[in-house]
Amino acid sequence: MGLVVQKFGGTSVGSVERIKKVAERIARTQAEGHQVVVTVSAMGKATDELVALATDISDAPPKREMDVLLTTGEQVSIALLSMALMELGVKACPMTGWQAGIQTDSIHGKAKIEHIDTAHIQKALNRGEVVVVAGFQGVSPEGAITTLGRGGSDTTAVALAAALNADCCEIYTDVTGVFTADPRMAPKAQKLQEISFEEMLELANLGAGVLHPRSVECAMTHRVPLVVRSSFENEEGTWVKEAEQMEEERQVRGVAHDLEVARIKVMGLPNRSEHLTLLFNKLANAQINVDMIVTSEHEDERINVAFSVHQDECEQACEEIQSNRDELGYLNVISETGLAKVSAVGAGMVSHPGVAARMFTTLSQSGIHIKMISTSEIKISCVIPQEKATQAVQELHTAFGLDVKTDELATVR
Amino acid sequence: MGLVVQKFGGTSVGSVERIKKVAERIARTQAEGHQVVVTVSAMGKATDELVALATDISDAPPKREMDVLLTTGEQVSIALLSMALMELGVKACPMTGWQAGIQTDSIHGKAKIEHIDTAHIQKALNRGEVVVVAGFQGVSPEGAITTLGRGGSDTTAVALAAALNADCCEIYTDVTGVFTADPRMAPKAQKLQEISFEEMLELANLGAGVLHPRSVECAMTHRVPLVVRSSFENEEGTWVKEAEQMEEERQVRGVAHDLEVARIKVMGLPNRSEHLTLLFNKLANAQINVDMIVTSEHEDERINVAFSVHQDECEQACEEIQSNRDELGYLNVISETGLAKVSAVGAGMVSHPGVAARMFTTLSQSGIHIKMISTSEIKISCVIPQEKATQAVQELHTAFGLDVKTDELATVR
Repeated sequence: MGLVVQKFGGTSVGSVERIKKVAERIARTQAEGHQVVVTVSAMGKATDELVALATDISDAPPKREMDVLLTTGEQVSIALLSMALMELGVKACPMTGWQAGIQTDSIHGKAKIEHIDTAHIQKALNRGEVVVVAGFQGVSPEGAITTLGRGGSDTTAVALAAALNADCCEIYTDVTGVFTADPRMAPKAQKLQEISFEEMLELANLGAGVLHPRSVECAMTHRVPLVVRSSFENEEGTWVKEAEQMEEERQVRGVAHDLEVARIKVMGLPNRSEHLTLLFNKLANAQINVDMIVTSEHEDERINVAFSVHQDECEQACEEIQSNRDELGYLNVISETGLAKVSAVGAGMVSHPGVAARMFTTLSQSGIHIKMISTSEIKISCVIPQEKATQAVQELHTAFGLDVKTDELATVR
Repeated sequence: MGLVVQKFGGTSVGSVERIKKVAERIARTQAEGHQVVVTVSAMGKATDELVALATDISDAPPKREMDVLLTTGEQVSIALLSMALMELGVKACPMTGWQAGIQTDSIHGKAKIEHIDTAHIQKALNRGEVVVVAGFQGVSPEGAITTLGRGGSDTTAVALAAALNADCCEIYTDVTGVFTADPRMAPKAQKLQEISFEEMLELANLGAGVLHPRSVECAMTHRVPLVVRSSFENEEGTWVKEAEQMEEERQVRGVAHDLEVARIKVMGLPNRSEHLTLLFNKLANAQINVDMIVTSEHEDERINVAFSVHQDECEQACEEIQSNRDELGYLNVISETGLAKVSAVGAGMVSHPGVAARMFTTLSQSGIHIKMISTSEIKISCVIPQEKATQAVQELHTAFGLDVKTDELATVR
């Protein structure tokens, strides 16, 4: 008998039929003897429809009012799911963010959870009810309705699990778990039985859409075991947990990719730290996210700076740099789109220095030109031409021994 | 400079375009120097769509969950209307029921407002904001979301006006005011400039859909002047106010009708009060609303009891009576559908005893058979055959001098 937090995303509650299926799954969990707290997102396209209404009224709808508008989507879901549970004879209690005691800061549109007052939830659990909490939302110190921004419902689930000291947090989604690579890119991708928080965080940051980085970070901080599994199928999912509790360490756990990368080279920047600071401050103030940064020597006490950005922000970044040409004092700026980033992630990298070498060898043997490199303790990323991305993911997947099913690994290694 | 509460119904906020029009009207009111609190209903068909989702899940959706579901409709409206106001440069603050301090009892689906804690609204008004409150909703002592049931948004508006001590409460709707009769029935119907609370309450109870009886009762109790006017046109509406403040008293202010009436006659009931009590207790326990009651003598210490009900409840009422035949001890029961009720309402009736006589004369001269009569101090109602209803309304409208415009009356009388 334990306490389980379950999260169901928009696809999982996308229709009345699916809501009924979700209710059946929750009922089974309760029947197994668990206390259950559920977090749900808005139904399928509900949020998009609400956004469309708002943009019909204003080109830039005010954020506080957007929060009032969008939170109705999850409120509809908690009402319908609670009804479906009661229809199955399961006692349920729907709670909006403010009713569940989810207290956030006042940054509308991307609020952070500051504290969860669990008294109301605990009372309902003590009455034997399944508590159905609206994801993605909370209430500010001023009593205003807030939303948590992207990935918000995952974060709600993990934060609830942490506050309630739950035994685990189950994230139900439209895939069966976390894979060694995107199966659409690498047909031999295998579902992982387990992955460490650190590895998952890197993968999430590198574009694996299955979990939002913020929710992984929250789970890691509060040591909440996560499991990612399918709402539609019954197979085991992927456990995300602490590295020391993992059964086996692998040099490379997975290969991630991002197909929307651009590179900007600023040539001949004066080699003084204030110019480098100024350059990246200008970009930060323009809300442009810079990813990888590489510098190299030019001549005459100047340097070249190359960095990568999301391709949608490339044009704006170049304009920002060009409009500050006099102040920055560089000679030339060049941008290049049509690039991709492939990354290998694995906690075992730290103790196996050969991983980087194997990555470069694999790519160069396949004739793939590496344009930028960046590394962390558990990750190596390379920027390459976009049209080579699929090939690169597949070659790396094979080279790092990921084509084999996890349970066959003992034999292979 | 005063405080005005404005209420806009579902038709008035039925589309983004209409919401923008409503915002313009509110902006004008504020520009005239008033503080403004607005109450809105859900957009057009929004509530029906939510109900359809719920009934897809459950044949009898639980009421607490229905309240969580339905209140999202008004929440969408307050968000969009606030955005539209801000787009016009008007500072606005959207508030759900719980944010506006609307405290109700715990009867889900038809809660009553017990108290309004206006502190949050007052603060926003002091900041110079237009406060946009979700109608039809509140919060129970347990912190659950409640709805006020039918006519709820009108009641929210009036209760807010009372709690805030507003100068008046404006009800914007899809008609231009309260008419002397339904213009679809009586083409010569005139818009009234004013009507007393008591008269309006009778008209509302008699089926004039423009205001819900509960909101009129609330306005009467708290002496809140009401005005009913069109959201779409700029003409003056109808003022609903205290009788002593009215410019002129009229014998008959308006003619109302109800086309869905049935009559049930219980023949030969034992003439003892416990049998009469038992009969109407049985009907009340079966949730059947009895309207008019007439008794007449039978023979052998028995009486005949005739009463009217809504035609949809006629069959159930007869079954209830027949299944208790032994206990009630009556001889026979007869029902008749296809009836209508026409009523004349006017505060001046008390001092003009000729009104009843004129009503009966008019109907009988037109060959309309009167099946039942009921009177109050300011109302006379007659049950007649349904197919004569239109004719009856027109004849009475003429007979009571209502065909003439209000401002021409001075000459006529």
